[in-house]
Amino acid sequence: MFARLAGLVGLGVLAACASSAASPGPDQPVRSLAEILEQAPASDWRTVDQNNLLYMQLPAGRVIIELAADYTPLHTANIQALARAHYWDGAAIMRSQENYVVQWGRDEADPRPMGDGQATLAAEFDQPRAGFEITRLPDPDSYAREVGFAHGFPVASNGARTWMAHCYGMVGAGRGDTAESGSGAELYVVIGHAPRHLDRNIATVGRVLQGMELLSVMPRGTGPLGFYETPAERTTISSVRLGSELPANERVNLETLRTDSETFRAVIDSRRFRRESWFLDPVGRINLCNVPLPVRVGG
Amino acid sequence: MFARLAGLVGLGVLAACASSAASPGPDQPVRSLAEILEQAPASDWRTVDQNNLLYMQLPAGRVIIELAADYTPLHTANIQALARAHYWDGAAIMRSQENYVVQWGRDEADPRPMGDGQATLAAEFDQPRAGFEITRLPDPDSYAREVGFAHGFPVASNGARTWMAHCYGMVGAGRGDTAESGSGAELYVVIGHAPRHLDRNIATVGRVLQGMELLSVMPRGTGPLGFYETPAERTTISSVRLGSELPANERVNLETLRTDSETFRAVIDSRRFRRESWFLDPVGRINLCNVPLPVRVGG
Repeated sequence: MFARLAGLVGLGVLAACASSAASPGPDQPVRSLAEILEQAPASDWRTVDQNNLLYMQLPAGRVIIELAADYTPLHTANIQALARAHYWDGAAIMRSQENYVVQWGRDEADPRPMGDGQATLAAEFDQPRAGFEITRLPDPDSYAREVGFAHGFPVASNGARTWMAHCYGMVGAGRGDTAESGSGAELYVVIGHAPRHLDRNIATVGRVLQGMELLSVMPRGTGPLGFYETPAERTTISSVRLGSELPANERVNLETLRTDSETFRAVIDSRRFRRESWFLDPVGRINLCNVPLPVRVGG
Repeated sequence: MFARLAGLVGLGVLAACASSAASPGPDQPVRSLAEILEQAPASDWRTVDQNNLLYMQLPAGRVIIELAADYTPLHTANIQALARAHYWDGAAIMRSQENYVVQWGRDEADPRPMGDGQATLAAEFDQPRAGFEITRLPDPDSYAREVGFAHGFPVASNGARTWMAHCYGMVGAGRGDTAESGSGAELYVVIGHAPRHLDRNIATVGRVLQGMELLSVMPRGTGPLGFYETPAERTTISSVRLGSELPANERVNLETLRTDSETFRAVIDSRRFRRESWFLDPVGRINLCNVPLPVRVGG
């Protein structure tokens, strides 16, 4: 009985996606998402710099996060410094709020030296639009005049400024009441419908490339804002390391599809128009946060 | 250190929301979301019909779902018939796909009589727009010309037809390749960024009013589409009952804020314009699936 529901296809871009739909035109063969990715030239994939990868070890496995060095260079440098200082060793998941964020950091009762890291940083909520090439989406967005992708991340713009969008799986740096009160020492990841009202109010610093399914299932905290009420409820982080500091045999050679590539444009098209036979209405539109950002393990 | 992050406020509408922001105008006091709800007249709340409530018992607790009798009357009647037949007793969570859906039903190796329920139903993917009053949102939507709320649910419209939108927490009826192949016997709930490409391709039949945090943390399945690969990985559903069939002392008197009320319009305004002091950019826009739909336990 469940086999017949296979048509309710997912966003997991590395899963096989059947494509038996009618052709969109005589000269344009329909390719499944899997076929589009298989046929991508090697140059359409980007090897992620190990210096921009955070490997976070949890009891259930490893999470790998890419830092957005182009959009948030100050936060990226600070987070790299904190990782080199082993700042998060023995830190914990402090908060899991339903349909919102999972957040981690150190208990204030258990501080640790920050090494070359800073406790506060200048705000990095947006950048000049002129400095970025954006692969634009054609469909309207509830929050911004322009949305698309740059340097592998979902982004938005108002024409003058551009910023990374709070899509599912994006990582941000918690802050207090003032713009300069964040540092990256406390990080959160989006685990629900994109809270885009946070855009430009807080620094998004990267996204989870691997292990998101370990963070999203953290039991929800029962305190205000989803904080755990007792230390026993927290999940301990044994270590956070930069890929560049790991032994070569512990690194994962992650590659992301270049968001300025022809292959990525084909990915967008295949997700805007759902040509799989299951879809009775092929849609023809897409939201920024519904576009998959393909990741693979390179050779 | 975490206290200063309290400004990263959540969508949990019953949590306290501080509001110390500047007034929007001399005669218009700023009210927090909690204050707006506290000050709502009793007539702005709607007592949910116990005949439209599904109580689903899981090992970790109870989930309560409201069926959308107005948008999907055929599916609602069929699901009610299946519940009366105790069709889902001993059923299981069969699938948990990251950033997509959690789905439940019976293993085909363990069938059970459907009572007065049907195995397939006519498609109910949309309804005539003329039959519904919609509290409209002013901001653009990536997928539909018009979005808003009707009968307590997030909805969309193209002018001629209207349908319930696949927002976080919405429940749908799985189907096979043909439009008429669903029945409600297999249900799914959205646990990630709204998969609005499913709108008008499948029947959304209701939403989770209580216990969503039990479904969203189901360990992700490692099979294709997030299906569990072995029966041992599934979570068993001990029973699903209509509220109207439960003893009075086992019912929960759930009330939802009327989406055609003045109070709900104030809720929308308070979430479009984020006047809490933490917000440096008050936003002024909102997406359909970011508007909270308040629920409370009545007296």
